[in-house]
Amino acid sequence: MASADGARVLRDLRHLRTIGAYKTGVHRPTLSAEHVAALHWLKGELEAIGHSTTIDGIGNVIGIADVGGRKVLAGSHLESQNHAGWLDGPLGVVYALEAARAVKADPALSGLAVDVGAWCDEEGHFGHFLGSRSAVGEVSEAQIDEARDRTSGRALRAALRDAGLAGKPRRAIEPRRYAGYLEAHIEQGDWLEAHGLKIGIVTSIVGIQQYRIALEGAQNHAGTTRMAIRRDAGLAAAKLCVAIDERFPKVAGERTVWTTGRITLDPGAPSVIPGRAEMLFQIRDADPAILARLEAELFALAAAADATGPCRVRAELIRKSEPAVMDGALQAALEAAAETLAPGKHARMPSGAGHDAQVFAKHMPAAMLFVPSIGGISHHWAENTSDEDIVLGARVFVEAVVRLLKGP
Amino acid sequence: MASADGARVLRDLRHLRTIGAYKTGVHRPTLSAEHVAALHWLKGELEAIGHSTTIDGIGNVIGIADVGGRKVLAGSHLESQNHAGWLDGPLGVVYALEAARAVKADPALSGLAVDVGAWCDEEGHFGHFLGSRSAVGEVSEAQIDEARDRTSGRALRAALRDAGLAGKPRRAIEPRRYAGYLEAHIEQGDWLEAHGLKIGIVTSIVGIQQYRIALEGAQNHAGTTRMAIRRDAGLAAAKLCVAIDERFPKVAGERTVWTTGRITLDPGAPSVIPGRAEMLFQIRDADPAILARLEAELFALAAAADATGPCRVRAELIRKSEPAVMDGALQAALEAAAETLAPGKHARMPSGAGHDAQVFAKHMPAAMLFVPSIGGISHHWAENTSDEDIVLGARVFVEAVVRLLKGP
Repeated sequence: MASADGARVLRDLRHLRTIGAYKTGVHRPTLSAEHVAALHWLKGELEAIGHSTTIDGIGNVIGIADVGGRKVLAGSHLESQNHAGWLDGPLGVVYALEAARAVKADPALSGLAVDVGAWCDEEGHFGHFLGSRSAVGEVSEAQIDEARDRTSGRALRAALRDAGLAGKPRRAIEPRRYAGYLEAHIEQGDWLEAHGLKIGIVTSIVGIQQYRIALEGAQNHAGTTRMAIRRDAGLAAAKLCVAIDERFPKVAGERTVWTTGRITLDPGAPSVIPGRAEMLFQIRDADPAILARLEAELFALAAAADATGPCRVRAELIRKSEPAVMDGALQAALEAAAETLAPGKHARMPSGAGHDAQVFAKHMPAAMLFVPSIGGISHHWAENTSDEDIVLGARVFVEAVVRLLKGP
Repeated sequence: MASADGARVLRDLRHLRTIGAYKTGVHRPTLSAEHVAALHWLKGELEAIGHSTTIDGIGNVIGIADVGGRKVLAGSHLESQNHAGWLDGPLGVVYALEAARAVKADPALSGLAVDVGAWCDEEGHFGHFLGSRSAVGEVSEAQIDEARDRTSGRALRAALRDAGLAGKPRRAIEPRRYAGYLEAHIEQGDWLEAHGLKIGIVTSIVGIQQYRIALEGAQNHAGTTRMAIRRDAGLAAAKLCVAIDERFPKVAGERTVWTTGRITLDPGAPSVIPGRAEMLFQIRDADPAILARLEAELFALAAAADATGPCRVRAELIRKSEPAVMDGALQAALEAAAETLAPGKHARMPSGAGHDAQVFAKHMPAAMLFVPSIGGISHHWAENTSDEDIVLGARVFVEAVVRLLKGP
């Protein structure tokens, strides 16, 4: 009976951790030499079980099994945020690889298979879900021409060329060929840990609405300008942050989150009253109605600040992703597997982070499995999950895959 | 009878405006080619009236008249802030030059004189009042070795070498040789304009206390971290700004000003909860007791925020200049001159900005005269003063100098 080999899963994850090691995490940005090395490692592992595997023109590793029966597509990503954790991405890739191996090795599952993908740049160094969107035909050549690394400014074309991928075709997956897409991931929050749970079954992936808020006052001398006549854009930004902090809890959903990730003051000198300020503000929720309500609240707070003065305040939506609902049958398969291997230690929950599964969910049934994150730490080199939880997650993942392959 | 030639004053100021012109202002940072050209222009003008003049090893232009009687020292600076106004500095230099010329040209004032200085780097590109402090013996060679341009990072030694000043001695002034130091300047605020006044007689130059406030929370994922467990250092900074804005008006003096000129969030990414934040905060007042009281308030607000959590908050004093009281007899001379030439249109007022006069005030009687700034605009290329006000200010300045030279 096919099942995950926990020692092999840990061995693979620890190997990937050595490629671009940074403290206890990794620094493996998209198409860095370390990222490319990880892609080649995965290609080798997939070829070792007979999957027809390519690293395609966008940097996706796609391994296809030559079987005629039911298939599941599974995967995640191998690049990291800058100086970040070792499991964000690799966990899902290694679970997918392990599922492909386990199914391949089980004669009882002959004719069935797991195809595996490592989708390039889920972390968004060059764009948003470039690899998975490319695999479902949503990325144009022009978009690739324009994309640049947000840290270094390097063109994606140059990065692809340096990775030996210039001119290689991009490979599309065939959604109708699959029973569904499954992706495992660390939770990146502390909800499972705080509730003593081991497995999260994702019900939906939140929608993200991102705003640029521009505040315009009057730059002037910090010594000679009386307080009464100041139009301090930095103070106006601080007041808007606090107003949001006071208002949003009254109108948000139970799991809504909102964040001011960046505030910049212009000119930002100690003896100059800031004449301009900019805030980047973000709202996430799985419910489109809540997102719409909070957008209205944000615009109302900005309009009220603008009307009160003394600074002009304008908020504009600059990016929006819709919430993605996970497939019911796939959730049921994950839940049945979890109840078998971790009885009473699993729960359904939304994902507060974006994942490639939201891209595939538009084209085929898709679902996700979460394992706990110690202390909820994420996008930081200290990110971690206990070995025990990693192995249990792998076993549940493979069990769910087998149930899906066998069919109802 | 010695008096200012208004046309000559305007001509000189307009000439200086062409050296490094930027929009309607100038870009003439310390020891830039344009600044050095302005220094040479001044040297030539002072030599034309027989002053023994050098550009010394720190970039000060010092013109000394060879007379035996009473002398006044007068001056200001010729460099500008980056992309700033045409009068901030040059007005005081040209008034001093005009006073020297007028006294020199009046046979009735034979044996009396105005010595003139353009003190390098009052605007602080490389340090704080480097030129005037050098002239009173307060700058060491080691400090010059270490100083770097805050915009370009260029070493002061390299800048002095490129200006042809490497190895030149620095010239000290003799405070006891002078009846006092007089400096004219634009107000840089709107107080004179708002009150329909033409001349400000400075009573004191404010003290400045500058603080670095460090806020430490926990960096985490902006999608997966529940609001309840967040430790958002950016939000904590915003709350502290607002708390200061609410508390300070209740305990500040009538003319106290305070400014958060810079807020930086780390890492400053849209999808990451800021784990660290830093604020640069400044308080200015002419009264040491008020400065001490507000420092205590700031520390109390920071301590309260720290105690309340969820972020650690520490405020530390990083720079302090004492308030400088202007000399009573010199103020009286300025006031008498103003009452003669602008009756009822003058008032005593503190200076909210720092000036070289605060350096000289520790070594000899010192005082300052202000002319109105249109709209209070300062440290911006749009800075301006009407020709009429410039000329009136020059006449009052020269009249006050003559009164001081003639003695009581």
